[in-house]
Amino acid sequence: MRSPLRSDLQGARDTIRLEAFSDGVIAIAITLLILEIRVPDVGESSPQEAWAALAALWPQYLGYVISFAIIAIMWANHHLIFRFITRTDHYLILANLFLLFCIAAIPFPTGLMADALGHPAERVGVTVYSGWFVVCAVAFNALWLYAVRSKELIAPDANPQSLAAVTRRFLPGPPAYLVAFLLAFINPIATLLVLLGLTVTYVLPYNG
Amino acid sequence: MRSPLRSDLQGARDTIRLEAFSDGVIAIAITLLILEIRVPDVGESSPQEAWAALAALWPQYLGYVISFAIIAIMWANHHLIFRFITRTDHYLILANLFLLFCIAAIPFPTGLMADALGHPAERVGVTVYSGWFVVCAVAFNALWLYAVRSKELIAPDANPQSLAAVTRRFLPGPPAYLVAFLLAFINPIATLLVLLGLTVTYVLPYNG
Amino acid sequence: MRSPLRSDLQGARDTIRLEAFSDGVIAIAITLLILEIRVPDVGESSPQEAWAALAALWPQYLGYVISFAIIAIMWANHHLIFRFITRTDHYLILANLFLLFCIAAIPFPTGLMADALGHPAERVGVTVYSGWFVVCAVAFNALWLYAVRSKELIAPDANPQSLAAVTRRFLPGPPAYLVAFLLAFINPIATLLVLLGLTVTYVLPYNG
Amino acid sequence: MRSPLRSDLQGARDTIRLEAFSDGVIAIAITLLILEIRVPDVGESSPQEAWAALAALWPQYLGYVISFAIIAIMWANHHLIFRFITRTDHYLILANLFLLFCIAAIPFPTGLMADALGHPAERVGVTVYSGWFVVCAVAFNALWLYAVRSKELIAPDANPQSLAAVTRRFLPGPPAYLVAFLLAFINPIATLLVLLGLTVTYVLPYNG
Repeated sequence: MRSPLRSDLQGARDTIRLEAFSDGVIAIAITLLILEIRVPDVGESSPQEAWAALAALWPQYLGYVISFAIIAIMWANHHLIFRFITRTDHYLILANLFLLFCIAAIPFPTGLMADALGHPAERVGVTVYSGWFVVCAVAFNALWLYAVRSKELIAPDANPQSLAAVTRRFLPGPPAYLVAFLLAFINPIATLLVLLGLTVTYVLPYNG
Repeated sequence: MRSPLRSDLQGARDTIRLEAFSDGVIAIAITLLILEIRVPDVGESSPQEAWAALAALWPQYLGYVISFAIIAIMWANHHLIFRFITRTDHYLILANLFLLFCIAAIPFPTGLMADALGHPAERVGVTVYSGWFVVCAVAFNALWLYAVRSKELIAPDANPQSLAAVTRRFLPGPPAYLVAFLLAFINPIATLLVLLGLTVTYVLPYNG
Repeated sequence: MRSPLRSDLQGARDTIRLEAFSDGVIAIAITLLILEIRVPDVGESSPQEAWAALAALWPQYLGYVISFAIIAIMWANHHLIFRFITRTDHYLILANLFLLFCIAAIPFPTGLMADALGHPAERVGVTVYSGWFVVCAVAFNALWLYAVRSKELIAPDANPQSLAAVTRRFLPGPPAYLVAFLLAFINPIATLLVLLGLTVTYVLPYNG
Repeated sequence: MRSPLRSDLQGARDTIRLEAFSDGVIAIAITLLILEIRVPDVGESSPQEAWAALAALWPQYLGYVISFAIIAIMWANHHLIFRFITRTDHYLILANLFLLFCIAAIPFPTGLMADALGHPAERVGVTVYSGWFVVCAVAFNALWLYAVRSKELIAPDANPQSLAAVTRRFLPGPPAYLVAFLLAFINPIATLLVLLGLTVTYVLPYNG
């Protein structure tokens, strides 16, 4: 027997607060990234030493750029899919919370990668960093595929071709990040270049 | 004599800003959790040492997982009860602020528990950690019970059976977290397993 | 001569984004308070030492409680006045930004007070802490008094008695915090008790 | 051939979530500024030493004031331009994300400038600090100029004179910050005074 609560919930739960909460978590995670770049102690430095200390932070700047770009793209894509998803259910909420779990953790592997770059543990840092993006990409696809397969969650007037186009756009994500991850075992710098390249492909206009 | 302000306030205060503020605090608390996992200093480490340093952070990862899950569930449940609560009054605002007070503090016992796990003070850390969730669960139930008993705050068209079903779902929370807390005096690891188990019960679909 | 921009702006600017931005800043400031309580290093402590280390953090807990309560009350009062303020202008935005400037800074005097309590610099910490709340209370009153005096910003159907009641409620704030501040020169603990007492008066229902 | 997705997207994307996300990032960045002012260790200080330690933080206070004011003005201006921008497209989203990238990073140059002020690396800190504001001002103008030139993004009923007035107000930003930046090579303190002065000009009412 179905409880009255259950049918109530599945019927009317809207996506507004879920989107607002997601926006909040994503906005905080993207802004906390800057805290991983610790201000160098320049109190006693000569100007030359201070410039050198700033230059030595290039792995931190690179991590900030890549992670900011990837989180920003995930936000834009989250925005995109919730133009089609107009209802929520229990598992959609769980899938969305798992995605937020992945995004909120990104400052940690970003800091690790930046600290390790140029040091003996460089491969460790880049492996963890790119591996985490594989997890994020899988979490994002799981959320979308769950929503698009259970038609009750999608706006009734959504164009099936548009839905298929969104799916086609997201499916290459996990294998692409997996390639970046596997490259780390050969050349960690190549991994970072691939990650940068993947964010640049987003800058290009959509071709469906 | 009632002041004109008072009747104004009790009549028209809506829940929109209260929900938005709550979403903000909860989103920030859940995202600050990652800052409790400090990036290990791998600058001079060999790859093996770096992997070992990452592996040694397992209590931090466990704390991140458990606290993220519990805060996420509190957010989802907060979302749920404010589908029934459509008006606010002075004490509802206070009860909600007390709940936010409890949630915003969670990063502290999380960090304490993670730092203590596997060390002599392990029981101290786990006792404080699980004890704080007892307080959170009581605060959540107090908010809901206050709202549901003063009928003016609840949507007039709310199904009484749905309200009773929500109450039945939340009431087991405080005793369940109390059991986890008391277990810490026997076996702190068992406490953490119970906390993990409690979050998993949420993943299952509702049975009313 | 008035520019077309100026009249556009003064006419239609709504308060929605101003309220949302204020909620964001206040929610973040209140949640960052917990970061001022650093987790004690209990890795090598015996259980007794760990409990003692936690007990020694009582000034930090007290600061968290007082600052959380005061920020929460400012949020509730901000919410209250923007039920009457329905339009914005340039100076209202500036007054609101100055209030946010004051609120966003609260974690700093909170941490200072907590670190100084029980130490020789106790009076310094409590003076700065309570003095900052005088500034906050003045900023809050300035915002409200500016809005209520320029009638264009207030909802046309606002009850003048309600407006006067709000003003009467806020005006005692600055002198009350000033008393707490001046008390610090005699007895810093008395200041903290007065601050706690001021937050408790808010818990009582309004009497207009 | 255009994909169905693409035309869907360009048609209906509204600005609500973009504004909410921007508000979130800006609110967090402005509130994180306070974390750059580390609480001095006053545990063993005499009252005189504690006052001296607080006084020695004047560069941190100055950085907090300037950066808070500049971010607040960017928020108010962002609010202003999105009263005219009522639709979004791919490049507007990218331009907005780049602006957020710049704003979210501000706590880092702020901390650097404050740590360097009064020390040999003072010029380095002030150069980086003011230089970053040049980048921010260019990012802001790029966002506005892109929007205003592609008429599809602007509200159809927007007054062309109002649009031109907004453009006239923003265009002096980049050269003004550039002057502040170049001044740092002559006198870093003069740069900070110019930055302060630029924020004060905003306090004045608009003259179109």
